[in-house]
Amino acid sequence: MNRYPILDRVNSPQDVKNLNRRDLKEFCSEVREFLVEHVSKTGGHLASNLGVVELTTALHRVFDTPWDSIIWDVGHQCYTHKIITGRKDRFDTLRQPEGLSGFPKPDESPHDAFVAGHSSTSISAAYAISRANQMSQSNSHAIAVIGDGAFTGGMAYEALNNAGRSRSNLIIVLNHNAMSIGRNVGAFARYLSAIRLQPGYLRLKDHTETVLDHIPLVGKPVKRVVQGSKTALKNVLYHSTFFEEMGFTYIGPVDGHDLKALEKAFTQAKLLQRPVFVHVETTKGKGYEFAEKNPLVYHGISKFDVETGNPDLPEEDSFSVVFGNYLTRLADCDDKICAITAAMKQGTGLTPFCSKHRNRFFDVGIAEQHAVTFAAGLASKGYVPVFAVYATFLQRAYDQILHDAAIERLHVVLAIDRAGLVGDDGETHQGVYDVSYLTSIPGVTVYSPSTNEELEAQLYKAVYETKGVAAVRYPRGCDKKVYRAEDPKADYVFLAEGGQNLAVSYGRIFHDLYAANEEGRFGALLKLNKLNPLPDELIEKIASYESIVFFEEVEQNGSIGEHLLLLLSQIGWKGRYRAVSLPNGFFKQGKVPQMLREYRLDKDGMMEILREEWENR
Amino acid sequence: MNRYPILDRVNSPQDVKNLNRRDLKEFCSEVREFLVEHVSKTGGHLASNLGVVELTTALHRVFDTPWDSIIWDVGHQCYTHKIITGRKDRFDTLRQPEGLSGFPKPDESPHDAFVAGHSSTSISAAYAISRANQMSQSNSHAIAVIGDGAFTGGMAYEALNNAGRSRSNLIIVLNHNAMSIGRNVGAFARYLSAIRLQPGYLRLKDHTETVLDHIPLVGKPVKRVVQGSKTALKNVLYHSTFFEEMGFTYIGPVDGHDLKALEKAFTQAKLLQRPVFVHVETTKGKGYEFAEKNPLVYHGISKFDVETGNPDLPEEDSFSVVFGNYLTRLADCDDKICAITAAMKQGTGLTPFCSKHRNRFFDVGIAEQHAVTFAAGLASKGYVPVFAVYATFLQRAYDQILHDAAIERLHVVLAIDRAGLVGDDGETHQGVYDVSYLTSIPGVTVYSPSTNEELEAQLYKAVYETKGVAAVRYPRGCDKKVYRAEDPKADYVFLAEGGQNLAVSYGRIFHDLYAANEEGRFGALLKLNKLNPLPDELIEKIASYESIVFFEEVEQNGSIGEHLLLLLSQIGWKGRYRAVSLPNGFFKQGKVPQMLREYRLDKDGMMEILREEWENR
Repeated sequence: MNRYPILDRVNSPQDVKNLNRRDLKEFCSEVREFLVEHVSKTGGHLASNLGVVELTTALHRVFDTPWDSIIWDVGHQCYTHKIITGRKDRFDTLRQPEGLSGFPKPDESPHDAFVAGHSSTSISAAYAISRANQMSQSNSHAIAVIGDGAFTGGMAYEALNNAGRSRSNLIIVLNHNAMSIGRNVGAFARYLSAIRLQPGYLRLKDHTETVLDHIPLVGKPVKRVVQGSKTALKNVLYHSTFFEEMGFTYIGPVDGHDLKALEKAFTQAKLLQRPVFVHVETTKGKGYEFAEKNPLVYHGISKFDVETGNPDLPEEDSFSVVFGNYLTRLADCDDKICAITAAMKQGTGLTPFCSKHRNRFFDVGIAEQHAVTFAAGLASKGYVPVFAVYATFLQRAYDQILHDAAIERLHVVLAIDRAGLVGDDGETHQGVYDVSYLTSIPGVTVYSPSTNEELEAQLYKAVYETKGVAAVRYPRGCDKKVYRAEDPKADYVFLAEGGQNLAVSYGRIFHDLYAANEEGRFGALLKLNKLNPLPDELIEKIASYESIVFFEEVEQNGSIGEHLLLLLSQIGWKGRYRAVSLPNGFFKQGKVPQMLREYRLDKDGMMEILREEWENR
Repeated sequence: MNRYPILDRVNSPQDVKNLNRRDLKEFCSEVREFLVEHVSKTGGHLASNLGVVELTTALHRVFDTPWDSIIWDVGHQCYTHKIITGRKDRFDTLRQPEGLSGFPKPDESPHDAFVAGHSSTSISAAYAISRANQMSQSNSHAIAVIGDGAFTGGMAYEALNNAGRSRSNLIIVLNHNAMSIGRNVGAFARYLSAIRLQPGYLRLKDHTETVLDHIPLVGKPVKRVVQGSKTALKNVLYHSTFFEEMGFTYIGPVDGHDLKALEKAFTQAKLLQRPVFVHVETTKGKGYEFAEKNPLVYHGISKFDVETGNPDLPEEDSFSVVFGNYLTRLADCDDKICAITAAMKQGTGLTPFCSKHRNRFFDVGIAEQHAVTFAAGLASKGYVPVFAVYATFLQRAYDQILHDAAIERLHVVLAIDRAGLVGDDGETHQGVYDVSYLTSIPGVTVYSPSTNEELEAQLYKAVYETKGVAAVRYPRGCDKKVYRAEDPKADYVFLAEGGQNLAVSYGRIFHDLYAANEEGRFGALLKLNKLNPLPDELIEKIASYESIVFFEEVEQNGSIGEHLLLLLSQIGWKGRYRAVSLPNGFFKQGKVPQMLREYRLDKDGMMEILREEWENR
């Protein structure tokens, strides 16, 4: 591969350390070209990775993984790290089944110190690792790399609060690009931008660096003097920053695309041997014109054309879009309806709502906990808040759903997107636990539409005909349009004739069950639209069948199939019961159709199972 | 009641507004006497309530509930508020069955704007209410009253970040007493104390107040001038505080026991009509010598003697104490064992661990999310972290258990105290959802001991013989010492002969099932010590019985009884099955034995049920 003469020579962090200045520059542009080439084929996170090429390179020149630990917050910016740590030859398999993960995975490489996927966890993990190092009398470092977007998540503060003024080798690198997935919101983002623009503060740092440059950096006394003088000066002449008040030594802002400046800052941080906060300014999408201009589109993308930069945008008629448009229409006629997002306006389909009803649209930042309690607060004053959120991220608000919304039966609507298997992002993003955790919270009504019409009808019911917390869950992607609902508003529908045999399902895979039964005429079908609570009269009806097979695209523990079986047993039903769901476990990246195939939740799999149950007996 | 001449005249906020200065002072001391008298009989939160008598009185003199909304964070400091809002005659029933709740409850009074019990939620709720007021064109105020302890919880920052620089009538009152339940930890607490000691800043505020005092407080222009000058001055002469950087107007510190100063500060805050942060300094336990000297003991107490101040301390041999002592002994011989608490050192029994192994003891503040990810970080470096936490508070770390610990099978031990019904604290504190939410997370092993010996043995297994996340759950209180385990380390034990009948249970209520069966000889017994996963060979053994009754002190959805029934059905079992658990719902305050009676989970209830199932058929 002559295209990447320098990159070809880099197979380990040591190789990066050995590059000279001129080669380093070339290395960074080759990495960018490599990223664009590969992500254009596999899909993945582009803009965030283009932004941290120099930052990552500098970290690997100053620190030694896995001796030192780098913890990537959220983790979608770890591609350069993977390239440097010997995984570049596997980049064709990025996010593919059995391939390289798009996120850090400790079982993929010892250079990946900690798992990531959800936001704002890196400081907690890095601080713990720094304390563990300390207990083991190791002087290795733990480095959290965290974007300003992740600083809207409360966990980051819990960790800052705990770590500040400790004496461990903890370095927090703020990757400040003023974007999370969308543009950052909130007071803290403004605060960070303000620091960025304080020339006085910068000057002081320059002065400190000058002092450091002229004193041999060897023993502790020198560092102490420098730190001491800085603190004294600071209090007289300049603001102290929040991070210094919290007990961190602050270094920055540093130009995140100036390798030399980065290495200097990281070296300084390393020598201090105490908690340090390094403020780095980067440009998301750096070096790829299309991504730099439109980082939102290139945040997480499917395949795209390298020349035109044309990404495969999400389909026009995805459930997310159908949801967003319908909620906007409801809000047109009802000024009590509010929409809430946790930094996911576009992904959840809320862009039109935001345009039309700006004053009732709330982007609260990456802060699902606050989002739910905020929703509960609006509900307590008679508004109807609809929080649109991915199933996997709502996990973070379990306590708030239970404690702040459900106990007082506040009418909060949860629009749960990406429910079910999500595919390429893997274990950290699967939406297969929501049915279990939602039904463990008393009084939560759960709807699960299969078609666009059902999504609208069930959302309408959640908004207007349900008390307490009402969740509507739907998968990534589009209505499969196999089954067409005659009564999209029904809580449940019985279909086909089946004698003593009944197959039950809901959501995306009901289309496949329907198709299977059209072909095989196995028995009667029950389509559930309202999963929880199951109405008493429905249990009675189900109990009239002798053999029941329940198909679900969620984990087994806490599934509707489990709840149903207990309810049936309570009225003395003693038929034959088979629940087919995902096993209790985590699910690696893969293509959704293949995964459904594997667990026999696609059309063919369901046909096989129904044959086993009802034909070959 | 001549003892309370002023208090007797107060039955509403208006009555407090009508009191003159001299009577107000007397009112506050009568409230204190009233609180001591009543809490000494009923038990409850004393120190936190004694600390906010003036603060609450001033709020009710300046604001008008329920027109204005006061949201009490955590909520255990709301007693004076309840007294003022017409509930003083019910104080004999505080925390009693059907009595007054110890926490704010919107269904108890319209003056209680929002539910509380867990920490750090008030700013989210108050901000939402202020935005709702704004949308409704109401100029009423939303006031969050939050302690510095609750500021260690990340949600508070998520809300600050979202609310800062908004234009709504939001007032945050920081009740700064430098205590959460124990003494506060962390960098932020130090930061707050630093503000407290900045005389320069105080002087500026005095100046501002002087300006306000000499200008009639009527129209908006005056306020704008004052704000403007303050901001300009501030940037030149003094530090800005974090809260100002976040977009709040800062007022304080104010002496929290000086009614006049408090009223002045709240009036100022009210007139500003924008987000305001009022920093109030209070003394926890103020006015009751024993509580002032020892606020930790008087935080939440059972009955005590008013004269000697002698509280009924938790029993010496409670599960919490047994756990803490045993973990300390394990740590004596194993320097990999670490203990973590979220501001609950004493309540979870970790005091001896902290004394003996200071360097491996981590109090992370009220920050359950961080606690779990911090534990996962320690585990990733080969340490064995044991996070001791109440079942209800662990709800807040659901995502962290799943995402940061379970996915990578990191060996994190959860010591889950107060599992089961907790009694007096009511809905917000019941530990009856943990079995459901823990078993919804793949790979979490759950142990549930019934005796001291089993607690030690199962904890040993969680620490040394379990992979991944291992939870040991135990209730409030002590070993009932009815059933004595012959093999406390077993995963399960079959007892008694029973032909075709098997009764199953675990945890605290197993003692009662055992006693019931000793008396009635109904059938065989199965005691589960390991609840999840249930071993395959056990399912086979259980399947050999024809009739099974499963008793559990947890909610039905996601219970072990549900999981077991599905596992039995999967191997074709078709016997008679009855699951007796708590219904899906919330459980008001009450005495635990009475509540177990009500749900037929005490000895007599279980006897009735076993008779119904096995004798009268």
